[in-house]
Amino acid sequence: MVVSGRNGAAPVLVRAARGEKTPHTPVWFMRQAGRYLPEYRAIRETHSLLEICARPELAAEVTLQPLRRFAADAAIIFADILLPVIPMGLSLRFAAGEGPVIDPPVRDAAGARALSAVDVDDALASTLDAIRLVRGELDAETAVVGFAGAPFTIASYMIEGGASRSFVETKRMMYSDPEAWDTLMRRITSTVAGFLAAQVRAGADVVQVFDSWVGALSPDDYRRYVLPYSSEVLRAAEATGAPVIHFGAGTATLLELMTEAGGDVIGLDWRVPLNEGWARIGGCAVQGNLDPIALFAPRDELARRVDDILARAGNRPGHLFNVGHGLVPNTDPAAVRFVVDRVHERSARQ
Amino acid sequence: MVVSGRNGAAPVLVRAARGEKTPHTPVWFMRQAGRYLPEYRAIRETHSLLEICARPELAAEVTLQPLRRFAADAAIIFADILLPVIPMGLSLRFAAGEGPVIDPPVRDAAGARALSAVDVDDALASTLDAIRLVRGELDAETAVVGFAGAPFTIASYMIEGGASRSFVETKRMMYSDPEAWDTLMRRITSTVAGFLAAQVRAGADVVQVFDSWVGALSPDDYRRYVLPYSSEVLRAAEATGAPVIHFGAGTATLLELMTEAGGDVIGLDWRVPLNEGWARIGGCAVQGNLDPIALFAPRDELARRVDDILARAGNRPGHLFNVGHGLVPNTDPAAVRFVVDRVHERSARQ
Repeated sequence: MVVSGRNGAAPVLVRAARGEKTPHTPVWFMRQAGRYLPEYRAIRETHSLLEICARPELAAEVTLQPLRRFAADAAIIFADILLPVIPMGLSLRFAAGEGPVIDPPVRDAAGARALSAVDVDDALASTLDAIRLVRGELDAETAVVGFAGAPFTIASYMIEGGASRSFVETKRMMYSDPEAWDTLMRRITSTVAGFLAAQVRAGADVVQVFDSWVGALSPDDYRRYVLPYSSEVLRAAEATGAPVIHFGAGTATLLELMTEAGGDVIGLDWRVPLNEGWARIGGCAVQGNLDPIALFAPRDELARRVDDILARAGNRPGHLFNVGHGLVPNTDPAAVRFVVDRVHERSARQ
Repeated sequence: MVVSGRNGAAPVLVRAARGEKTPHTPVWFMRQAGRYLPEYRAIRETHSLLEICARPELAAEVTLQPLRRFAADAAIIFADILLPVIPMGLSLRFAAGEGPVIDPPVRDAAGARALSAVDVDDALASTLDAIRLVRGELDAETAVVGFAGAPFTIASYMIEGGASRSFVETKRMMYSDPEAWDTLMRRITSTVAGFLAAQVRAGADVVQVFDSWVGALSPDDYRRYVLPYSSEVLRAAEATGAPVIHFGAGTATLLELMTEAGGDVIGLDWRVPLNEGWARIGGCAVQGNLDPIALFAPRDELARRVDDILARAGNRPGHLFNVGHGLVPNTDPAAVRFVVDRVHERSARQ
């Protein structure tokens, strides 16, 4: 385990998320635990993804694996944004090469009303226990990041039954059946808000709300069909006192509205130059925004891109270095370590 | 066949693309011919997609089918942006539910160098003949739209071997093997530029360059790896004298660079409010930008969205009404007709 001196201060990531000056720019990676690591794949040979999530000691182990390789400033708990749909009453499986499958999907108001209220402390105890284990293992400088899916992104999986390109069924419900949409979004909102609060109680130092697919929406649709629910989730998360990161991808035209919805930190993907995005999110801190595929570039090109992002951040406090979307399966772990070290070295402050 | 009086003027779409005042805002739809039409599916029962493309009379028939249902201002020739990869020497098939498959893909400089130069008049004669047939059938007010894929989008299919979410192999080649990338992009550029010119000679009144997946790139990557090639294609298309539409999706941060690359008309998807996008593309005309999934909304909601786009265009000449990406398979043809009629009615100018 990476151990550094405990100095009583909050983790670097927490301080940066609050816009405070830190000794270096903190760095972590979405999907930093998982498929690109051989030691994760070894565990997956005998355990399914859902089994790992259901067993706190395994989830904690997988969460900690990347921290043994590189000095990231945070460990993000190994879980899946769709875990809460199981206690809500849906059937979730991960099909090989297909990603998540929810079958049958939710397609109408009756389906939305049939979703159960969730006692998160009980139903999602394995993730909360994993957070406790990880928090107990890590030094005080390293943050534990808890997370949940935002209502729109979870709803889209529930309605489509899996990943989607055009979100036909999701938008059809939004546009055609406001009662079903509202019922569904409220149930998800309440589950997710409770889950985030429970994660902070369990020891998460920061929580991230993933609205991964919200970039499928126009600003008007976001404002009308998504913002009220996301806002409720983000307010509940903020009320815990832990900093809240609000993440989406493909959100170049949604940044102001996402900022309005809430969060201490707004995530940017690589399509928005970091300085331009940061200028649009008011006083919030910013997270991002390396293209995860840049980790496939030769080292000199990767270094150039890391340096460019740091230059755009201009050493201003409140920047959390991350990728703009999750790491992909064939990423070289050595490239990940290279980025961590380069960010730390180049951002070291006197 | 829809027949209106021949008045000697260029088609409405052509005039709007040139920024001229027209009697109404012209409207057409990407993928307006195809899977959502029962009469197309009837033909597909006995003919594959590639067979239809290879037989000019069938391609022309499919192109004209939507025009028998509604008074669109243009017929877009039925073809596929990947047709040119076949005479370039690659193996293309359309797998059920999977979309296009290119196997083996192009992964290195040797693969790029092995691609053949294409005599477009010979190798792509079926599409050119289909354009001649369609042009002969349509009245002078209705434009025939020819098209080709932009170099980046075609390259991504060649390298990935099909559709992709993360474009790992494409970006890996871009970042790691500049010689392979340049060779590949030049070969595609030359084929596509020649094909567009041949389509105009065959009777296309307007051509559209589809850079459907370019929204995967940051502005810096677009400028460095894509713009020079797209620019060459667009210049060649502009040299024909026909107006050129430059289309991409997810391009909220690329609009200025796409405008710099070229085109008389810049396509916008629904993520960018039309007035805001139009203000960013200089003196160009604008095409868009209804969310194709809005056609699944109830009629009053669909009407509201059509009217909103027209209001944002403000009746200023130079707006081509379209969807922001192609129509999807289960779209109701009656909804498409509803949009055509509403655009014509609401935009009629004295």
